Amino acid sequence: MKKKQTGVTYKSAGVDIAAKAAAIWSAREAIESSWGPEVVGAFGGFGGLYRMPGGMKRPLLCSSTDGVGTKIAVAIAANRHDTVGQDLVNHCVNDILVQGARPLFLLDYIATGHVKKDVIRDVIGGFAKGCRDNGCALIGGETAEMPGTYRDDDYDLAATIVGVVEEADVLPRTKNGVKPGDVLIGLPSTGLHTNGYTLARKALFEIGGLTVKSKPKELGGQSVGDALLAVHRSYAPLLLPILPERRIKAMAHITGGGFPDNIPRVLPEGVKAVVDATAWKPLPIFEMIRSLGNVPNAECYHVFNMGVGMVLVTSKKDVEPLLASLKAHGESGAKVIGEIVKGDRSSIVRFGR
Amino acid sequence: MKKKQTGVTYKSAGVDIAAKAAAIWSAREAIESSWGPEVVGAFGGFGGLYRMPGGMKRPLLCSSTDGVGTKIAVAIAANRHDTVGQDLVNHCVNDILVQGARPLFLLDYIATGHVKKDVIRDVIGGFAKGCRDNGCALIGGETAEMPGTYRDDDYDLAATIVGVVEEADVLPRTKNGVKPGDVLIGLPSTGLHTNGYTLARKALFEIGGLTVKSKPKELGGQSVGDALLAVHRSYAPLLLPILPERRIKAMAHITGGGFPDNIPRVLPEGVKAVVDATAWKPLPIFEMIRSLGNVPNAECYHVFNMGVGMVLVTSKKDVEPLLASLKAHGESGAKVIGEIVKGDRSSIVRFGR
Repeated sequence: MKKKQTGVTYKSAGVDIAAKAAAIWSAREAIESSWGPEVVGAFGGFGGLYRMPGGMKRPLLCSSTDGVGTKIAVAIAANRHDTVGQDLVNHCVNDILVQGARPLFLLDYIATGHVKKDVIRDVIGGFAKGCRDNGCALIGGETAEMPGTYRDDDYDLAATIVGVVEEADVLPRTKNGVKPGDVLIGLPSTGLHTNGYTLARKALFEIGGLTVKSKPKELGGQSVGDALLAVHRSYAPLLLPILPERRIKAMAHITGGGFPDNIPRVLPEGVKAVVDATAWKPLPIFEMIRSLGNVPNAECYHVFNMGVGMVLVTSKKDVEPLLASLKAHGESGAKVIGEIVKGDRSSIVRFGR
Repeated sequence: MKKKQTGVTYKSAGVDIAAKAAAIWSAREAIESSWGPEVVGAFGGFGGLYRMPGGMKRPLLCSSTDGVGTKIAVAIAANRHDTVGQDLVNHCVNDILVQGARPLFLLDYIATGHVKKDVIRDVIGGFAKGCRDNGCALIGGETAEMPGTYRDDDYDLAATIVGVVEEADVLPRTKNGVKPGDVLIGLPSTGLHTNGYTLARKALFEIGGLTVKSKPKELGGQSVGDALLAVHRSYAPLLLPILPERRIKAMAHITGGGFPDNIPRVLPEGVKAVVDATAWKPLPIFEMIRSLGNVPNAECYHVFNMGVGMVLVTSKKDVEPLLASLKAHGESGAKVIGEIVKGDRSSIVRFGR
């Protein structure tokens, strides 16, 4: 006969410590696959230990925390959980890349109403793949079960990355830095990356009546879910080998706040950026959001990357060599998209003559 | 005449970029008050830059991510938002302290359904105070507005800490490490710290019918809200000056999973910990939870710290000198609470003879 449990337990209150431990251990192999010899100590410790790289002159640690926002709502609707972790890793990698840093390690945070082992394993697996692809160790994390705060199926993610850069190599450059006459080069994005999903979902799903499974002709066979879940591109594999050429004076990751808010973050006083929106054709998914939601043009470039996920600033004389180097490293979609002029440390988008 | 806006904007979809920026900038002074000369660069960059401490032989970076769980639900019920950030900083500090590391910097993550400037400012202010108190720089963070995922008033927090430790000083010690005959010393907690709130809320509020404002006689004049919101104690100010005496072989932060799950994380193979629950009297708030919820004894010590937030492992001969040193550094509540015996790398709690 089973003994009847009359008191309240953590499990009966909605938190299952054993299920959470099982979920995390199911991802152990994936996590450890991202570890190099710099990771010291074993799985399951209180903190992750990482050996500081030797041989640097004046190392600065560069760190950033981010979330994926409501891209998760799309992942949940499509029941696909192995890509959002990659999105977040790549987002974080880009955020320290724009300061010239290369990634060392990353920690993830997963919060959910109810731990589902398969979902947690897939999410952590995505983090681990993202880390491997960027030469970064997934060194720690936390999975929190919070019934009440999150609905059963809902979860939220955050991640923190730590990288390193020699002080002399920090971007934006301050010596021979950004000045009027410099040129903006845009690098293609894969889609929305991780920004603007609340607006996109409103336009596509609520107003447009589409679902993640819809395959509108504008997307040429791709489903809305696949277009929206396209993995945030990491620009590190392309740009880390090019940085030592010292042709890039500054770069801006086009995330929340779009072109107006992100480019000024790397501008000195006395200049502004002028982005020419006619220089490239937005990806089809952005055109759909704009047209279904009747989203004003200025708002589009303030919320979305519109097909350009990273902006590089270089001197006029370096434009051709930089484009050639980008091409030699596999990127033939880089384009001149604007210029630096005298101004008030702002960034404006022009839509025509 | 105002121009009528017919299209969808990010703001009309529920995300107000300007309000978020205003909320973060309102906390700028508090954030910068946690910065020492090691923080390089200005507020508002993509990533935080921190100068790696010099003069170390074999530095290991030690990092940890955590959340505060549903302690936030209590903070929201009590409409008090300036302490949860401190809770989280101290939680993170303790998690790397148990590996022998001192904190360098921390990054926060705040996610909410709707950005309320005052709440965000108070939360970030709490993070900043917690960081200042631990000599740690609040170097970055992310505030995410996610209508739909979080209800209006709801928010969730996570934080990531990065610290540093000389390889020779890493805990648990592997040379002359933990062995049978060693002694467990418990350090007093201030309350639940950041664990077990889902169970506590069920017992106190749902079953017991109490509110955050109730002042039951068991708490001697303190309200339930104040007892539950007591700030997670950081053991770094006490223990960092004592670590160089090298009397502590290992230490375990008693967080989620309580005594059975946390102590084994720092044990080598071949030994187990035996905790004597009669060695100390649990804080009144735990007795209330146990009795109102009729929570089984074993469950209490598996979910809560029961009044002991940090467990130190030391050799028998070092017990008296260590207790004396703790007292000399201001802690007179440290107690012997158990011992290490031969065993299977577990931790058991004994409730009597």
